[in-house]
Amino acid sequence: MGAPAGFTLGELAAALRATLEGDPGRRVTGVAPLETAGPEQVSFLIDARYRASAEASRAGALLVAEDVSGLRGPLLRSTTPQQALIALLTLFHPPASLSPGIHPSAVVASDARIDPSASIGALAVIGADAVIGPRVRVHPLVYVGPHVEVGEESVLHPRVVLGEGVRLGCRVVVQPGAVIGGDGFGYAFDGSAHRKIPQVGVVVIEDDVDIGANTTIDRATLGTTLIRRGTKIDNLVQVGHNVEIGEHSIIVAQVGISGSCRLGRGVVAAGQVGFADHLTIGDGAMLGAQAGVAADIPPGERRLGTPAVPMGQAKRVFAAQKHLPDMARRLRAAERRLERLETRLGIAPSQTRASGVVDDQA
Amino acid sequence: MGAPAGFTLGELAAALRATLEGDPGRRVTGVAPLETAGPEQVSFLIDARYRASAEASRAGALLVAEDVSGLRGPLLRSTTPQQALIALLTLFHPPASLSPGIHPSAVVASDARIDPSASIGALAVIGADAVIGPRVRVHPLVYVGPHVEVGEESVLHPRVVLGEGVRLGCRVVVQPGAVIGGDGFGYAFDGSAHRKIPQVGVVVIEDDVDIGANTTIDRATLGTTLIRRGTKIDNLVQVGHNVEIGEHSIIVAQVGISGSCRLGRGVVAAGQVGFADHLTIGDGAMLGAQAGVAADIPPGERRLGTPAVPMGQAKRVFAAQKHLPDMARRLRAAERRLERLETRLGIAPSQTRASGVVDDQA
Amino acid sequence: MGAPAGFTLGELAAALRATLEGDPGRRVTGVAPLETAGPEQVSFLIDARYRASAEASRAGALLVAEDVSGLRGPLLRSTTPQQALIALLTLFHPPASLSPGIHPSAVVASDARIDPSASIGALAVIGADAVIGPRVRVHPLVYVGPHVEVGEESVLHPRVVLGEGVRLGCRVVVQPGAVIGGDGFGYAFDGSAHRKIPQVGVVVIEDDVDIGANTTIDRATLGTTLIRRGTKIDNLVQVGHNVEIGEHSIIVAQVGISGSCRLGRGVVAAGQVGFADHLTIGDGAMLGAQAGVAADIPPGERRLGTPAVPMGQAKRVFAAQKHLPDMARRLRAAERRLERLETRLGIAPSQTRASGVVDDQA
Repeated sequence: MGAPAGFTLGELAAALRATLEGDPGRRVTGVAPLETAGPEQVSFLIDARYRASAEASRAGALLVAEDVSGLRGPLLRSTTPQQALIALLTLFHPPASLSPGIHPSAVVASDARIDPSASIGALAVIGADAVIGPRVRVHPLVYVGPHVEVGEESVLHPRVVLGEGVRLGCRVVVQPGAVIGGDGFGYAFDGSAHRKIPQVGVVVIEDDVDIGANTTIDRATLGTTLIRRGTKIDNLVQVGHNVEIGEHSIIVAQVGISGSCRLGRGVVAAGQVGFADHLTIGDGAMLGAQAGVAADIPPGERRLGTPAVPMGQAKRVFAAQKHLPDMARRLRAAERRLERLETRLGIAPSQTRASGVVDDQA
Repeated sequence: MGAPAGFTLGELAAALRATLEGDPGRRVTGVAPLETAGPEQVSFLIDARYRASAEASRAGALLVAEDVSGLRGPLLRSTTPQQALIALLTLFHPPASLSPGIHPSAVVASDARIDPSASIGALAVIGADAVIGPRVRVHPLVYVGPHVEVGEESVLHPRVVLGEGVRLGCRVVVQPGAVIGGDGFGYAFDGSAHRKIPQVGVVVIEDDVDIGANTTIDRATLGTTLIRRGTKIDNLVQVGHNVEIGEHSIIVAQVGISGSCRLGRGVVAAGQVGFADHLTIGDGAMLGAQAGVAADIPPGERRLGTPAVPMGQAKRVFAAQKHLPDMARRLRAAERRLERLETRLGIAPSQTRASGVVDDQA
Repeated sequence: MGAPAGFTLGELAAALRATLEGDPGRRVTGVAPLETAGPEQVSFLIDARYRASAEASRAGALLVAEDVSGLRGPLLRSTTPQQALIALLTLFHPPASLSPGIHPSAVVASDARIDPSASIGALAVIGADAVIGPRVRVHPLVYVGPHVEVGEESVLHPRVVLGEGVRLGCRVVVQPGAVIGGDGFGYAFDGSAHRKIPQVGVVVIEDDVDIGANTTIDRATLGTTLIRRGTKIDNLVQVGHNVEIGEHSIIVAQVGISGSCRLGRGVVAAGQVGFADHLTIGDGAMLGAQAGVAADIPPGERRLGTPAVPMGQAKRVFAAQKHLPDMARRLRAAERRLERLETRLGIAPSQTRASGVVDDQA
């Protein structure tokens, strides 16, 4: 059994706990997208937007949800198709096996404690008193600073930086180039120059957190910048000093979270959202892409826009603002009509245009 | 001939295919900006905004467009002044010569195939089965993962990461810190936690693509994230999994492109633009800075704003929205005038204020 | 004396030039946030938002401003509490001492000039003809390109890249992953492809500048990209080619500054602000978060919004735009009321609705 030889559809159905419609003896050797899959590959239809591609696909079998109809087989039907897809991809693309040990080119402090089952890649640097747990994978060119702790089965992809004293839980995955534990951005102006406030706190990343490529998470000024367990952070995200993000939150690419914000559990922030400092964002709050958040948000609220307002309201504002130039024109016309009516009825002229605001004739 | 000795204006005119107005025997030894150039340096006026600086410049000669008038010489007139500028800068600043070979501190997998004409810098890491083509320049501290292919004359600046299986065409230039082939951001919530969807696809970068510093391009979930030939990507750009960008597009700094977007040929996205996922952006579409794109865009369209609307409309909206507070005030006044008129004419009071919306007295 | 043994409150009062209310012989061994500080630790109340936490704190002493009242002691009162906080944090967390010398794993060009008091970390690369000044700290995995100069007491955190010819003044601090001196984003379309304009200028960073993690500062096309002394730049900021930033400015995370912008002295740009190219931003101008700046800004002006307008106006627009859908509805109602009045008075129907714009019934 294995990727070259592939799997029979019967084997896949068993492994994915799926119901097979088709020949259980038929063999597939890989997973491929709907458009490129051939008869010897399995593909999947989970997002209904790809229905047409599924109908046209030459794939040897399709993983689908239980209630999908009208597709010709073979089909692997799952009640939890996304989880089945994870299992399917893992079957055909098992994680690379770990080669325990320290690459001879790595530079490891004499008092660092590296678990014998961990793998330290080429040209990695492990600082004084650092602790690298069991089955941790440190890829090449990673920097692990002094007094850092990395919990078991965590993965540091190439060129990650963990600054002094940063603590990672278990199964934390950090994509390439992320910087955890850079200094927070804190200054006090003394009348002639900005004097740096020493950033002497740490960063704690709990279990099962993922952190994206080139993302930056600053250490606390004092105390802890904290990412709670299960939270997933995308690429190029900025997390300021003393921020706390609750469990199982989702922070999409290029989001910026200013210092001392507290995000609750299960918060979702879409791409390029910005949070002002010292905000409290309630459990389960959702922020639409590019939202600018300048005030606290209660639990469960959905917000969009700059400044962020409730999502339904934001969509109505977005729909209305397209017509603003027309509204401005119509308002001017209404004022002229009012003047005409007032003149006809002998009512004294109104003072409402006396504000001195220049009216833009857009 | 060379930078120290410089060039005569006659030599420059020939090399740039420019028409010289001035002494062909006069010698210049370098290129400099208008403000700092001295009599022994050549400068240029291509952007008309710098006309005044050109008039005040002490430069020994100016490269200008064919139709520029009123500047005292010497002048090098070109019908394609931007191309001539490229030639001029290249003459005085030829690319550093390549020293083929592998620096002894680099860590190269035994089965990697490095072309003998390629240069592998200090402390670079080249993974198993990687292929580095002719005259490729791998700068120090670069990570090239297993099974990566890099086409001829490509340049990987210091600290670039190419993840497993990434393929680069010829003459691709990657600025420092860029990460190509980090995992895409894909999770399925299983009711208690976000489970990662394995990201087992690749990234393919075609010929003549440039990629900016600290930019991140994620590998496909399955299949390929594809940047077609000639496209130029600036710094700190996020390209999500399974994105496809067409030929000769321009993606300016801090743009975010969500997963599975398809951008056409010759698309231009200005700084900080955000694209929602699964969008189709037509050939030649242009997006103004900070635009938020939430819907497909037909070919050739210009869009601006959040959500993005046609550029002319967006500019009218921008112009009108400045007057919104005044419009709100005038609308209230108009309603009062209507009430007065209705009262005068004995018309029943209107119900239009009964919505319960609190009217902000901004 | 030192962190383990701590300090008496009397010693702290003297060191911070603070007035002590409490027992000068009482000893504290560390600084901690209000919430976690115990009786053997000192904490601080500088931001009035934390008043309640201060009242509830178990800290052994509090550093406060001179005029704070109602807190039970012991108190260290300071006329400059932020400066006193800097002193306090520095007392308990003195910077790590410098170990001069070059780590044996570093790769240093034979003609680089490294001051004997400088520290070059593991696996750092120092290019040809580079000059590293006294007491400079080059952390591991840093790349210093050819002809770079780094002034005394500067700190290059792990994995910083300084491209060829970059010059840093004294006491410059660069956080991990920052790239200074990548190529600017300049192309000329020749009718079939974007041809790169060689970027042959440099970057000059003056004294006392701080640069954030994974920030990118591009070299000039020709001439100099210049960051003047005392300016502080946060994480993930993009500074384009030929930009100039004046002294003591503050550039917050994820700001993007397009090519050839000139920012004055003491400019403050909040998070995610974007500047179009070639703008002049006057001394002391302030830009609110996410502002989109498309035009020059006079000195001292405060701007917000996209496009940026004066801050007070932007706030009025933000307040008004929430009511846009209601305004649209009320405007339609006013038009109906006008029609009714006009009909009653026998006035000819108005032409103001004839624009053909579809009125969105949001």
